[in-house]
Amino acid sequence: MDYQVFDTTLRDGGQREGISYTVADKLAVARLLDEFGVGFIEGGWPGAMPKDTEFFARARTELDLKHAVLVAFGSTRKAGVDVAADPQVQALLDAGTPVVCVVAKSDIRHVERALRTTPGENLAMVRDTVRHLVANGRRAFVDCEHFFDGFRVDPEYTASVVRTAIDAGAERVVMCDTNGGMLPSMITKAITEVVERTGVRADRLGIHCQNDTACAVANTIAAVEAGVKHFQCTANGYGERPGNADLFATVSNLQLKLGLKVLPDGCLEKATWVSTALAEIANIAPDTHQAYVGAAAFAHKAGLHASAIKVDPLLYNHVDPAVVGNDMRILVTEMAGRASIELKSRELGIDLAGHPDTLTAVTHRVKELEASGWSFEAADASFELLVRSELPGAEYARPFSLESYRVQVEHREDASVLCEATVKLRVQGERVIATAEGNGPVNALDEALRTALANHYPQLKTFELSDFKVRILEGSHGTNAITRVLVGTGDQHREWTTVGVHENVVEASWTALVDALTYGLAQARATA
Amino acid sequence: MDYQVFDTTLRDGGQREGISYTVADKLAVARLLDEFGVGFIEGGWPGAMPKDTEFFARARTELDLKHAVLVAFGSTRKAGVDVAADPQVQALLDAGTPVVCVVAKSDIRHVERALRTTPGENLAMVRDTVRHLVANGRRAFVDCEHFFDGFRVDPEYTASVVRTAIDAGAERVVMCDTNGGMLPSMITKAITEVVERTGVRADRLGIHCQNDTACAVANTIAAVEAGVKHFQCTANGYGERPGNADLFATVSNLQLKLGLKVLPDGCLEKATWVSTALAEIANIAPDTHQAYVGAAAFAHKAGLHASAIKVDPLLYNHVDPAVVGNDMRILVTEMAGRASIELKSRELGIDLAGHPDTLTAVTHRVKELEASGWSFEAADASFELLVRSELPGAEYARPFSLESYRVQVEHREDASVLCEATVKLRVQGERVIATAEGNGPVNALDEALRTALANHYPQLKTFELSDFKVRILEGSHGTNAITRVLVGTGDQHREWTTVGVHENVVEASWTALVDALTYGLAQARATA
Repeated sequence: MDYQVFDTTLRDGGQREGISYTVADKLAVARLLDEFGVGFIEGGWPGAMPKDTEFFARARTELDLKHAVLVAFGSTRKAGVDVAADPQVQALLDAGTPVVCVVAKSDIRHVERALRTTPGENLAMVRDTVRHLVANGRRAFVDCEHFFDGFRVDPEYTASVVRTAIDAGAERVVMCDTNGGMLPSMITKAITEVVERTGVRADRLGIHCQNDTACAVANTIAAVEAGVKHFQCTANGYGERPGNADLFATVSNLQLKLGLKVLPDGCLEKATWVSTALAEIANIAPDTHQAYVGAAAFAHKAGLHASAIKVDPLLYNHVDPAVVGNDMRILVTEMAGRASIELKSRELGIDLAGHPDTLTAVTHRVKELEASGWSFEAADASFELLVRSELPGAEYARPFSLESYRVQVEHREDASVLCEATVKLRVQGERVIATAEGNGPVNALDEALRTALANHYPQLKTFELSDFKVRILEGSHGTNAITRVLVGTGDQHREWTTVGVHENVVEASWTALVDALTYGLAQARATA
Repeated sequence: MDYQVFDTTLRDGGQREGISYTVADKLAVARLLDEFGVGFIEGGWPGAMPKDTEFFARARTELDLKHAVLVAFGSTRKAGVDVAADPQVQALLDAGTPVVCVVAKSDIRHVERALRTTPGENLAMVRDTVRHLVANGRRAFVDCEHFFDGFRVDPEYTASVVRTAIDAGAERVVMCDTNGGMLPSMITKAITEVVERTGVRADRLGIHCQNDTACAVANTIAAVEAGVKHFQCTANGYGERPGNADLFATVSNLQLKLGLKVLPDGCLEKATWVSTALAEIANIAPDTHQAYVGAAAFAHKAGLHASAIKVDPLLYNHVDPAVVGNDMRILVTEMAGRASIELKSRELGIDLAGHPDTLTAVTHRVKELEASGWSFEAADASFELLVRSELPGAEYARPFSLESYRVQVEHREDASVLCEATVKLRVQGERVIATAEGNGPVNALDEALRTALANHYPQLKTFELSDFKVRILEGSHGTNAITRVLVGTGDQHREWTTVGVHENVVEASWTALVDALTYGLAQARATA
């Protein structure tokens, strides 16, 4: 690729209030970003954050990336320390990534007032660190923090940081609008001056924009138009304060508006689902109004123009929604169509083309469920159970059925918290009652359910709950809200996700748990 | 004013899914926009929308605007109809506004395929309508729909619409990026060509941008930089699809970055509260991450750099938050140090400078809690309770204490789900027991708690739970995970957020609920 699409969702994007990825989340995010075709995935700061160290360690065996390379992020060496003796720099090498990106001060005021060192020592820190990385076989990128502020206040000092990094062997020097205060015209002007003053060609520079003027995407585009070929984004614009340049809008604009090829073929079409899946992992409600990938991005209010839109959609859409994997929606309530359900079923190995009645029934049921807060985007296993239950002959006889359950949480006088669940089931014609304790209501229910089923389905022992996500749906108030629960489950062979929705979090969790075990048992039977 | 700030929150902004203003809402929105100093408020489409007709009628007696004039929006006359006999045009005059803005087709394809009339008749419709409005003493603005698409496909026809409108007496001709597909560089280039081709000066043109490329604000700025002095925005960017150019970011950028005076003195400082108030009226949760005016727009994760931020805030903020009426917030987050805790406490009105022991104790406690999954970055009220409980003399005597509680969730044979909670408390020396039902365990606990406290603290009735968020924390597996719960609570005067963390979601929720009521009662006492 001529352009370097550098994603920093896992590093800078994690600065957004409320985002807190597990290592498993980080691995899943990296897989999705790779699927979308970015060239570089900045995974975190090894050494500084134990979770990031673990991410890079697990990535070596657990990730098999098609398009992207991993990048470890860190800082230049400490002032007054030999680079080879700086444990933070060593941790960057230990991460074992082909690329390392180090942040450097490039605003003289930050050097003096925040870093509290001399201008010369800061340059030496850049030089030593880049040389050390290169000498150890790494491609080195340098993020110049507060670049544009620095360049305004003392252009010569900021330019000297750029030259120092390039001379030391940095592959790219990235101009970071750390405070996010730039406008596109200011970016254009600054880059022209930077190129003139440093003698460094624009295609050796990179751009990293924050969204504090609501212009992060436009600023990134302006930099590319000025000749920059490396740009840093985050998925959905996640990041500190108003966030970063949104990966999906930036890439879509460059490919569709400027005709630049920045992603491998076949990747841009994945924008909408990758965006949604990443929001699910971050546990942030997808932004309906997000450019290109939002559910309302191509929504038109029906009315006078509905038929005109249908005949001539390109008169009303700035691009064909399909090129970013999105849909044009005429009706706000139209969440799922026959076509997408048929497509999705085929993906799961069920051909509904020969079962038009089932397709109708499933479409109807999905619409009904989505209207009351369900979402199957991240819950393939629940969707598959739903489709199979509507098939003629209903292949999926449920392995057990519920008579009743009861869960109790007690906070006692000695401040201990106890939790106990009892389930009453019918399993293969038999009535089974089991009680178990747990450290929370869902855990207790899970334990009771497994106890009840252990004799009939010994293979349950291999299933492990790996993830549990709770989302309170918007548009509802306080504890009266509708709750959506996603449960991730795995065995030696695979992982699957199920969903439950109810105003009671315990009942929502129960539904997802039951689907999780049902699906797992059906798979085990199919492969036995 | 040299610049025309034209707000269309009430007309185009109302296209956003889910917004539905009453006439009283519309009057309140108009007052707020006037307070913010916009020059023009487009109130709606009289004649077409009964609510809008009523709005303009009531506005004549109920609005007393200081800065703005009202604008009625409508369409050019119908094809083949005498303008004086067109009831839609008459309704525009009947609205009694000094300004009327009419939308005209300016893309030849829309003239032929959607309007289904001839190019010449479309021009006549523009000419007749503008002349008629001007002859009736109105200032006429013309919105050219799909302007940029039209100008690309058939520049001469689009130019002829501009010339026709100007020649007929239009004060401004507005270039509308109706599909929202433009980028700033495309806007700059198009405007240069429009001025050349039409001979109309840029300051007679206006700009209206949709946000489909995530560049609406940047596109508007680019147009102003190209000489346009009339720009149309909506508050918070509300609008169809990804919305319109956000009024607050656009105006802030123009005043603070380009040094243009677009608002009367003393108005920009109102941006943050006007934005929030307008979100309340629209019944849309304010966007925390909105540029300039969002609650997180100037939020910094403290940690290492807290002391530097304290000394030199302008090194870390692109503008002084006070100029848009916003605040810098310090997020109490992992790796928080004494400096950030002192700063945060001062923000909450507690000066710890004279209490070094308390500062040490609080810092120690916060670190300990954060290590076990607590986070105070979104829970100021819990943080304040924590600080006050460590102050000498512990001002915050807890208004009640827990002996025990019990919650039960039951899924019965008839598939109904029941939930019941019992709490046993000590309140002002008395032992109180109360039981309540709820639609979930937390709701039941909340109800039981309120029932138990109702006699001693009648003011509890005014507290309403407004938000409830559940997060499963990292580093843990499935339902064994640690759960963090955030509870938002409000009364007539304010809103506050509290946090609870536990492996059991019910106990975590209980902790946050208790803090929510404790904090609310303390505030009520303080202001009584």
